[in-house]
Amino acid sequence: MSAFKITLAYDGTDFVGWQRQASGVSVQGVIEAALTDLDQREVAVVGAGRTDAGVHARGQVASFSLARSIDASAVMGALNARLPESVRVLAAEVVPETFHARYGARRKTYRYRIWNADVLDPFERRYVWHVIGELDAAAMATAAASIEGRHDFAAFRSAGGAPQSTVREVFTSRVIAGPLVRDPLITYEITGDGFLRHMVRTIVGSLVEIGRGHQPVGWMLDVLSRRDRKLAGPTAPPGGLVLLSVEYDDRLLAGGR
Amino acid sequence: MSAFKITLAYDGTDFVGWQRQASGVSVQGVIEAALTDLDQREVAVVGAGRTDAGVHARGQVASFSLARSIDASAVMGALNARLPESVRVLAAEVVPETFHARYGARRKTYRYRIWNADVLDPFERRYVWHVIGELDAAAMATAAASIEGRHDFAAFRSAGGAPQSTVREVFTSRVIAGPLVRDPLITYEITGDGFLRHMVRTIVGSLVEIGRGHQPVGWMLDVLSRRDRKLAGPTAPPGGLVLLSVEYDDRLLAGGR
Repeated sequence: MSAFKITLAYDGTDFVGWQRQASGVSVQGVIEAALTDLDQREVAVVGAGRTDAGVHARGQVASFSLARSIDASAVMGALNARLPESVRVLAAEVVPETFHARYGARRKTYRYRIWNADVLDPFERRYVWHVIGELDAAAMATAAASIEGRHDFAAFRSAGGAPQSTVREVFTSRVIAGPLVRDPLITYEITGDGFLRHMVRTIVGSLVEIGRGHQPVGWMLDVLSRRDRKLAGPTAPPGGLVLLSVEYDDRLLAGGR
Repeated sequence: MSAFKITLAYDGTDFVGWQRQASGVSVQGVIEAALTDLDQREVAVVGAGRTDAGVHARGQVASFSLARSIDASAVMGALNARLPESVRVLAAEVVPETFHARYGARRKTYRYRIWNADVLDPFERRYVWHVIGELDAAAMATAAASIEGRHDFAAFRSAGGAPQSTVREVFTSRVIAGPLVRDPLITYEITGDGFLRHMVRTIVGSLVEIGRGHQPVGWMLDVLSRRDRKLAGPTAPPGGLVLLSVEYDDRLLAGGR
């Protein structure tokens, strides 16, 4: 058996999400089907981030093992030949059998894009949240930075989340307004050691409440400290979200043959 | 009656093209349906460029007249409220009744995008031509510039085109390779006083033959001068093409109330 790590980009619009489900087409499902065809046996794939329906990826990472003897570049070619065009393998490497894409992940970065103008660019309609009415990007940036650090993020998890620890460390949380005057794009990027379900989208929904002037900048930390999901803003829609990258300790990746 | 000029962006992927057809959904059809709903009578729309199925627009221009009394910004709002998200009105203005979006057009600019790398970005799959194998962008640029001027473009029209004049003036014809080293995008832009059906896509198909090294740079002018469609390269696929802008004489636009 050889273990592989692959890096993936996908347009999540037409998928029920990363994770295989009873009905509907999942990203995990199409990759497992392609690998099962390649290896002529059932292959299970682990993804670093379980992106929801409509959420995209430019740097999702997945791991799996194959019985046949094949090198990493051939795995990449064979997968891209079998996958729909909406899912592409960008890189593949051999890793130790102990590598696990989810448990081994140390840092993940997500990006969220908001289109803040009256008219939505039709080419962006699947990849942004269209927010009409001027947003105060400077206030959003200050509020975003205020949640950096190690905190209990229970206020920003999905309602009914599993009873696990809700403490996470956020390394950076930044709002980047467009480089041009009146650029309609407002971009948010967050890097952390892990994320609760819907955490990024609920943070974005809360930042937009501040951007609209419905809440003051200090409300962000107030919501965080009260740990009550009902106090936070709405969950931003999935299309604006993209999993940008997943990072691992180098020692987890060393030793693959 | 008031006459209007509107500027449109659309994602052409799911349309049978600009022009209304016996079956399938056209861009013209959805705009006429929206205007007919607004004006409570049949409204006919003229488009500057009859883009084919799968071809996109960022600056298509259309004209029509309405019986009801309504200002331009209200027309824009009413249309965007009724149109699918894949079609957006970017601007609207009142024009003289004599304004005709197609006959009045003096210059049109099209852009064509080629993705020249082994792996296609899934987010670009509807908006580029994926060409595998290194292209010589410098040779393509020289060949592209060689067709600037007033010429008979019969070599680049669609087979079976209507027996009209095939002389057109191309003001600029430029290949722009990506700004970064090994950027996978090669962009082509062409501005002219008019275009024959499939002309831009056949020029691009021919430029790619040169980029691949299948033909020398001078072949482009040779094909042009021989005026035989069978000598030119293949018609490039529609998804890479976008109608960027349409220009009119200012005097055609003056005098609208």
